[in-house]
Amino acid sequence: MANPLPSDSVGVVIPDTLQFDEPLTLDCGRTLNSYELIYETYGTLNEARSNAILICHALSGDHHAAGYHSIEDRKPGWWESAIGPGKPIDTNRFFVVSLNNLGGCKGSTGPNTINPATNKQWGPDFPIVTVRDWVESQARLSDRLNIDRWCAIIGGSLGGMQVMQWAIDYPERIDHAVIIASAPNLTAQNIGFNEVVRQALRTDPNFHDGHYYEHETVPSGGMKIARMLGHITYLSDDAMRAKFGRELREERIQYGYDVDFQVESYLRYQGESFVNKFDANTYLLMTKSLDYFDPADKHGGNLSEALKGVTSKFLVISFTSDWRFSPERSREIVKALVDNDKTVSYAEIEANHGHDAFLIPIPRYLEIFDAYMKRVADKIEEIDA
Amino acid sequence: MANPLPSDSVGVVIPDTLQFDEPLTLDCGRTLNSYELIYETYGTLNEARSNAILICHALSGDHHAAGYHSIEDRKPGWWESAIGPGKPIDTNRFFVVSLNNLGGCKGSTGPNTINPATNKQWGPDFPIVTVRDWVESQARLSDRLNIDRWCAIIGGSLGGMQVMQWAIDYPERIDHAVIIASAPNLTAQNIGFNEVVRQALRTDPNFHDGHYYEHETVPSGGMKIARMLGHITYLSDDAMRAKFGRELREERIQYGYDVDFQVESYLRYQGESFVNKFDANTYLLMTKSLDYFDPADKHGGNLSEALKGVTSKFLVISFTSDWRFSPERSREIVKALVDNDKTVSYAEIEANHGHDAFLIPIPRYLEIFDAYMKRVADKIEEIDA
Repeated sequence: MANPLPSDSVGVVIPDTLQFDEPLTLDCGRTLNSYELIYETYGTLNEARSNAILICHALSGDHHAAGYHSIEDRKPGWWESAIGPGKPIDTNRFFVVSLNNLGGCKGSTGPNTINPATNKQWGPDFPIVTVRDWVESQARLSDRLNIDRWCAIIGGSLGGMQVMQWAIDYPERIDHAVIIASAPNLTAQNIGFNEVVRQALRTDPNFHDGHYYEHETVPSGGMKIARMLGHITYLSDDAMRAKFGRELREERIQYGYDVDFQVESYLRYQGESFVNKFDANTYLLMTKSLDYFDPADKHGGNLSEALKGVTSKFLVISFTSDWRFSPERSREIVKALVDNDKTVSYAEIEANHGHDAFLIPIPRYLEIFDAYMKRVADKIEEIDA
Repeated sequence: MANPLPSDSVGVVIPDTLQFDEPLTLDCGRTLNSYELIYETYGTLNEARSNAILICHALSGDHHAAGYHSIEDRKPGWWESAIGPGKPIDTNRFFVVSLNNLGGCKGSTGPNTINPATNKQWGPDFPIVTVRDWVESQARLSDRLNIDRWCAIIGGSLGGMQVMQWAIDYPERIDHAVIIASAPNLTAQNIGFNEVVRQALRTDPNFHDGHYYEHETVPSGGMKIARMLGHITYLSDDAMRAKFGRELREERIQYGYDVDFQVESYLRYQGESFVNKFDANTYLLMTKSLDYFDPADKHGGNLSEALKGVTSKFLVISFTSDWRFSPERSREIVKALVDNDKTVSYAEIEANHGHDAFLIPIPRYLEIFDAYMKRVADKIEEIDA
């Protein structure tokens, strides 16, 4: 019987879960006494334990970055374009770990899991976790996996912020920091969009102050708006023009509030299909974590100061049409690293896909990413040999 | 007693209303048997009736473009920066007419007025009116005011679309078309943002399918989201950075869902204060009118064909940081006019205020606008003399 899964995929993967019982004090001041993290691994850890890569996910991401959850599964992990045999994050050479962050909704402890203190779902009582908290929890995951040092930590968008924080907090545990389509903090416009989404979720009558689980409902209206807005802002104006233009769904205008244009149909569909795929409390928490990230803040806004102590090498990638995390923002990171004489490669990829570009197999992007990761792998195998 | 109103203002103005009893068949196929239009005038019509200017308003605009509604009124009309004695639209020289469009909510017949057929408010039964319908109703208003020919018709954003439509539909009735921060049609991204707003309004539990008047409520959640999103997209990223940056409201982060950043506070305030200022059914109608405008459509998308028959002179103005109606879109209009050997002046104003720039007294913008309008006035007075 032929394997129906693509040969350049890691194939079927089964997540693992680890329980952590050492209390974790969070940035907000609250303490989680115990928590679970769900993760997947792809590839094989070498004997020297020197080929491990950590993947950090973005706002609506999870641990399932590559492969399939069953032989019948038709939808691979969210970064299948970059992770797998022969791909930039080459699973023939690297051992890859991808987790669902604390506060997530796909198996790690978060708002939709049981709070042992109440035996009910945490809901809105789950603390807001920050990028720093995530890095701390990921460091503990590293300990449990006996990975002292990651040859690379890689992430896009909010994931890239975690990579930056790793480089700052644990310089001795990271060799290469790969930061894609990210920023050193959110702009007022970014925060504004997040606040619109929060208002849409929190004023949804089915939100019940975050206790919607007990009411056996979900704030579906708010979730739809969150996702529709996400899609518009993750795509570029050009990408939307190329994809939809002003194409009508029917032959002519309807003069009503049903769908007239294909773009409306697409957005409604994306919004609706998101409602039962993601948890609103987690979405809220993730937007706050994004808003709060600002490593330069405690250095008077000086990012160069914030990055003074990093020792890893950096690959920074941005995309020309990404207007939520524009190239200008990536260049701020690069400048701060150069100010400190750090080793940094920077690529600004010509792409009209907007912020979503980091998930798309754009040849020039994958080429540069691949070349960089090949050098990382070569070096490891050279030392190993 | 000193007059407390600024001397460069038209001062106290009182709106007028006209009733129209000739049935108006709309683009959607439905007919309004009668309707009212509310309008204001500023300045004096000359004997030759040759110095009249029509102002067309944008999405949330109305007839109150300049002056004050009472001596105590602290808030002038929405375009006080451009209309008044000595201003670009100089009320010492021009006679200015500004109306609330059909379907509006500030006194003209629209969803919140009484449908004579039912003796109840129209609500969602009010037909969707198009830019063409507006121009038709404005032409009838011109007839009633005995204005055969406008020396200029002027509008920004959706107002600019009406100006374009006037130039196409009534070339013999318009001398100068002034189109500011506008576009020949909306992009997929623009339509997408409008659809998010429509979903927010229509899924608000207080919307009651548009019959919220009868329930003595308003879809306040949806209106807030509409306005917040409007503010973000009418401002530029730069303008928001300059205005708010990442400034906190309190001394430190709250780790909750109350306001952390000043930008959140501003957006919430703007959203809340809009709720009782505007009608949701009108807002919906306006977004559809925006989406539908596309004069090139019946010419196979060829804007040059659509503008072939215009005879007025044009002034087109755009603003560099306007990303909802970008300079690129204004240049499409200019190109189509140049293709047809029409007379067009074009100014691309360096401004970081985003789409809102057209309402802001930016010196270079007002200078160019003023110089153009002075030539228009000089010409009229020269002929008159």
